Amino acid sequence: MNKTIAVLGSGLVGSYIARQLNQLNFQVVSYDVKESALQKLKLQSPDIDCQITDVSNPESLSKAIQDVDLVIGAVPGFLGYQVLETVIQNQKSVVDISFMPEDPSSLNELAHINNVTAVVDMGLSPGLHNLFIGYACARKQFESGLIYVGGLPKIRKKPYEYQLVFSARDVIEEYTRPARYLENKKSVTQPALSDVETIEFPDIGTLEAFNSDGLRTLLHTSPIPTLKEKTLRYPGHTAQMWSLREAGFFSERKVIVKGQSVSPVDVTCEVLKQAWAPQGPGHDIALLNVKLIGPQGNAELTIKDFFSEDENATAMARTTGLPCIAMATALLENPTVLPPGVHPPENFGGNEVLFHRVMRLLADHKVPATFEV
Amino acid sequence: MNKTIAVLGSGLVGSYIARQLNQLNFQVVSYDVKESALQKLKLQSPDIDCQITDVSNPESLSKAIQDVDLVIGAVPGFLGYQVLETVIQNQKSVVDISFMPEDPSSLNELAHINNVTAVVDMGLSPGLHNLFIGYACARKQFESGLIYVGGLPKIRKKPYEYQLVFSARDVIEEYTRPARYLENKKSVTQPALSDVETIEFPDIGTLEAFNSDGLRTLLHTSPIPTLKEKTLRYPGHTAQMWSLREAGFFSERKVIVKGQSVSPVDVTCEVLKQAWAPQGPGHDIALLNVKLIGPQGNAELTIKDFFSEDENATAMARTTGLPCIAMATALLENPTVLPPGVHPPENFGGNEVLFHRVMRLLADHKVPATFEV
Repeated sequence: MNKTIAVLGSGLVGSYIARQLNQLNFQVVSYDVKESALQKLKLQSPDIDCQITDVSNPESLSKAIQDVDLVIGAVPGFLGYQVLETVIQNQKSVVDISFMPEDPSSLNELAHINNVTAVVDMGLSPGLHNLFIGYACARKQFESGLIYVGGLPKIRKKPYEYQLVFSARDVIEEYTRPARYLENKKSVTQPALSDVETIEFPDIGTLEAFNSDGLRTLLHTSPIPTLKEKTLRYPGHTAQMWSLREAGFFSERKVIVKGQSVSPVDVTCEVLKQAWAPQGPGHDIALLNVKLIGPQGNAELTIKDFFSEDENATAMARTTGLPCIAMATALLENPTVLPPGVHPPENFGGNEVLFHRVMRLLADHKVPATFEV
Repeated sequence: MNKTIAVLGSGLVGSYIARQLNQLNFQVVSYDVKESALQKLKLQSPDIDCQITDVSNPESLSKAIQDVDLVIGAVPGFLGYQVLETVIQNQKSVVDISFMPEDPSSLNELAHINNVTAVVDMGLSPGLHNLFIGYACARKQFESGLIYVGGLPKIRKKPYEYQLVFSARDVIEEYTRPARYLENKKSVTQPALSDVETIEFPDIGTLEAFNSDGLRTLLHTSPIPTLKEKTLRYPGHTAQMWSLREAGFFSERKVIVKGQSVSPVDVTCEVLKQAWAPQGPGHDIALLNVKLIGPQGNAELTIKDFFSEDENATAMARTTGLPCIAMATALLENPTVLPPGVHPPENFGGNEVLFHRVMRLLADHKVPATFEV
């Protein structure tokens, strides 16, 4: 009998992962609290078992994953850690892409006790950049590295020239969560949206990039002493988001309006969900460039993907989902291929087979990806 | 016995008017729904009778103004019309500065029936610009006119380089209310914040100006066939406000957040109240430039006022409040100096004594004002 996978979250990326795993003939059960998200998925892939479930409730979640062989975590960041903990407590291995603010490695001991493997941050960035850095560092020494990543709309529409490629709440997180990077082995913290620079991206044009908190586990695991991640947007976007943040639109501190107590960020999230709603099918561009510089030569990875008409999927869903799928299928084929514990992708960079498996899956799906070490 | 004046609204401008009328030895009763506003006023002028009253309640308002000789209306725009109507029904003459969206001239008949004089839009702009246009047009013919007006902070602070000089709700109104102007005797409507131009203001530097809905009664009364009003801000502000509006932050349409139904504009108003809060004492700059062009020569009025340490008052409170005070004291001295009815200031432009009374009061308060016809 085919193995069963629970996909937690049916957002823009989670639904893509569910559809692809279903096409690979796995039994897929998708969970989401929003009926509309599941209805859309069911229309596209009628074979998927879609269940309206609040996975933030540990009891419901435990019941949901009771009989599955593997779990995929694709929930909004604020739910990520709690969901991961519950999954591990239920002795299920998991591949996760949630942009959680907490450090998931604090669940490492729990994973060992329960003898399960949890691969975290297994998307594009974090995700592919971690795996590539692990792979490159297993081969050469590097002195510094710079990661640029971003999801952009193909059609630029004012005021923000941006569209959602994952949850609005997680985009706001990128604009508020302090950005940590490595400078000479020391972790430096800067506000998000800082150090704005203008860069030319080949075939795309002029973009801007700002500090974002994408290094995460690499802050502790990176053998490269100086390493930064920056997020890419069309020029002008950063200043607009900075203005919203500085004015208080991203604030959690409640205000009273007409007798009701409301956090501005909750209303901002609803407003931006509409202002950032993808136009039409949501044609987007996903960009990733990792450049590592060292005495033995440089290494570089570049991904430049576009909305796929064939798969009816955004570039961000593809480039985030496919690395996760490659890791998940590796675990399903051989549950002992990865050791127990909580692992970020860079831990497996030395595993050449695994790295090439991920890159091959991207190539099979015609994601334009080039790398050189 | 001294005459008694009710000042409705103790905001930034209303409280200045109350203080000045008190210094002129009138009996002043100030009304506001907010205790904090009245407490501040009471500290500055202990002689003023401060009453916490909701003037949007017609019964409370009728009772409040029962025994006064004159009413000053200085409430937020959305309350203006209703308050004006109640005051007229109570047979009280009134000088009003509220930026109401409705056309107050629809209360003209009611004012005649009750035999009272209501001078509306009697602030800076609308207000002084109407009076000046009336004054100039009584002397010469003009083909076109352009009005620039704005309240700016002396210290420019990002993100918005703006600070409140009257209610946040009325500032948002300037950014949302469609702007009407005259082109060859025809009323043309454009969105607020449109036709942004960069201008150099002498001694101030580079500013930008956008269409705003400041002509109001002049749309019907102006003998000048082409006339526009534009609002002044520091460069960049207009695009920021345009972004907020286009994204939906000024929308009345409710969104659901955590089970509560909220209008984004209500939350935006609270956020901007804080983001636009005056720094320290609120040093500001109030600018007005009216330029009329005609075959018999041009006319020009320029006001460039700054926060007054002597009066502990913002430039906007002074330049808005003093024209209102000049008109109010004229009415108190001689209730028949102005005919019954609802009158915008341009109606009195032909009254040279009244025009010079207003200009003299500005000069007495050291407001830098120059004019030429």
